[in-house]
Amino acid sequence: MGRLRKKKGLLEKLLEKDNYLVKNPVEYKGKWKKIFGKDNLHIELGTGKGQFITTLAEKNEDVGYIGVEKIADVLFQAVKKAEDKELKNIKFLLFDVNQIENIFEENEVDRIYINFCDPWPKKRHTKRRLTYREFLSKYKKILKINGEIHFKTDNEKLFEFSLNEMSEFGFELRDISLNLYRDGDLDTVKTEYEEKFINQGKPIYFVRAIIK
Amino acid sequence: MGRLRKKKGLLEKLLEKDNYLVKNPVEYKGKWKKIFGKDNLHIELGTGKGQFITTLAEKNEDVGYIGVEKIADVLFQAVKKAEDKELKNIKFLLFDVNQIENIFEENEVDRIYINFCDPWPKKRHTKRRLTYREFLSKYKKILKINGEIHFKTDNEKLFEFSLNEMSEFGFELRDISLNLYRDGDLDTVKTEYEEKFINQGKPIYFVRAIIK
Ligand SMILES: C[S@@+](CC[C@H](N)C(=O)[O-])C[C@H]1O[C@@H](n2cnc3c(N)ncnc32)[C@H](O)[C@@H]1O
Ligand SMILES: C[S@@+](CC[C@H](N)C(=O)[O-])C[C@H]1O[C@@H](n2cnc3c(N)ncnc32)[C@H](O)[C@@H]1O
Repeated sequence: MGRLRKKKGLLEKLLEKDNYLVKNPVEYKGKWKKIFGKDNLHIELGTGKGQFITTLAEKNEDVGYIGVEKIADVLFQAVKKAEDKELKNIKFLLFDVNQIENIFEENEVDRIYINFCDPWPKKRHTKRRLTYREFLSKYKKILKINGEIHFKTDNEKLFEFSLNEMSEFGFELRDISLNLYRDGDLDTVKTEYEEKFINQGKPIYFVRAIIK
Repeated sequence: MGRLRKKKGLLEKLLEKDNYLVKNPVEYKGKWKKIFGKDNLHIELGTGKGQFITTLAEKNEDVGYIGVEKIADVLFQAVKKAEDKELKNIKFLLFDVNQIENIFEENEVDRIYINFCDPWPKKRHTKRRLTYREFLSKYKKILKINGEIHFKTDNEKLFEFSLNEMSEFGFELRDISLNLYRDGDLDTVKTEYEEKFINQGKPIYFVRAIIK
């Protein structure tokens, strides 16, 4: 009961952050660039605690960013980061990626980031992986021609699976890395999970996939 | 002096095997399928001691096979294997892959195998890797449309490099594996190097690349 009440409190607090949290995203379908007043729209799927996307938003003022995350607890932390940095070019959606077509118009998105999404290792859970072909088909729709997915993971099997799904689906693969930090640190923007995995000495996999 | 004489002897012995070794391959450019009397032509580049290609030739009588290898010593062992098995659908060329366009006509080849080619890890040797773009450009020419390269290696960096080169060059990537025998042995035809690396517990990388 105590736990429930605490969670409810957090969701309410999240919903109050209406300068960052978009409560009715479906209404803005096709209008995101206008809302930001930017020519570029980059979105992150499964944003988590938001270190990655808030850092990008800080660095690239000419891009509008949207973080999509289905769990209120972690999204609240992402929103707080944006607030602390007083960012003007970022919004967050408490939303399931499954329904992504309902909030973005065809060709509306310039770039999609997917970082360390849940690997769902069991075969019967294949369809839940965010790089499963049904998801790719949705991404393809909302991405502009020559739009890109930037994908990072620590999971070898998920990476292998994702390369195959992407290539079969007609994405062109670029900058594939089987160990992104093989030669030491790079000046990349890192996620919370990424820093954890790097500290554990795990290799990070990366690919940039372009849709024609 | 003794060593030199022995080597010369071996080359001479190899040249005698004219039922398997084609001494003037340039003359057969465009005519390989006719020579074999087969509709399919599969070639292996850097055949080494020939276990892979002779096993394939044994299994697939409807395919004509050509093994290309630049070192006489190892090629001699490949030829002996074909002889022992009394194969009728295989030939060997003592030849440098660099000159591959001189022995195969445009669209003449259905499939190219490249197995455990030298990784040439130093950056200044990039151009020597058999999956470097200049080589891919030659393979593209001699491969038919929808022709395939089947590539296996134990070398992570070479594999990463090769995926990027192939994808940039317009090959579509299929069946990528970052650890081919992850779940135990598979009923694949293995090369001499492959067996050695499997015994050392090293992961084997694989990709099938299709040219459109
Ligand atoms: C392993 S975490 C990684 C978080 C962050 N990207 C990072 O790298 O630190 C995966 C995140 O994706 C979110 N997620 C998974 N499936 C989702 C979906 N279908 N829709 C929205 N978010 C999802 C999870 O709630 C979780 O926060
Ligand atoms: C590492 S060995 C692998 C041999 C065999 N494929 C295997 O997997 O057991 C590489 C072979 O490729 C041959 N090779 C390398 N570059 C070549 C070239 N440009 N033309 C022909 N053969 C080449 C080498 O002589 C060597 O026999």
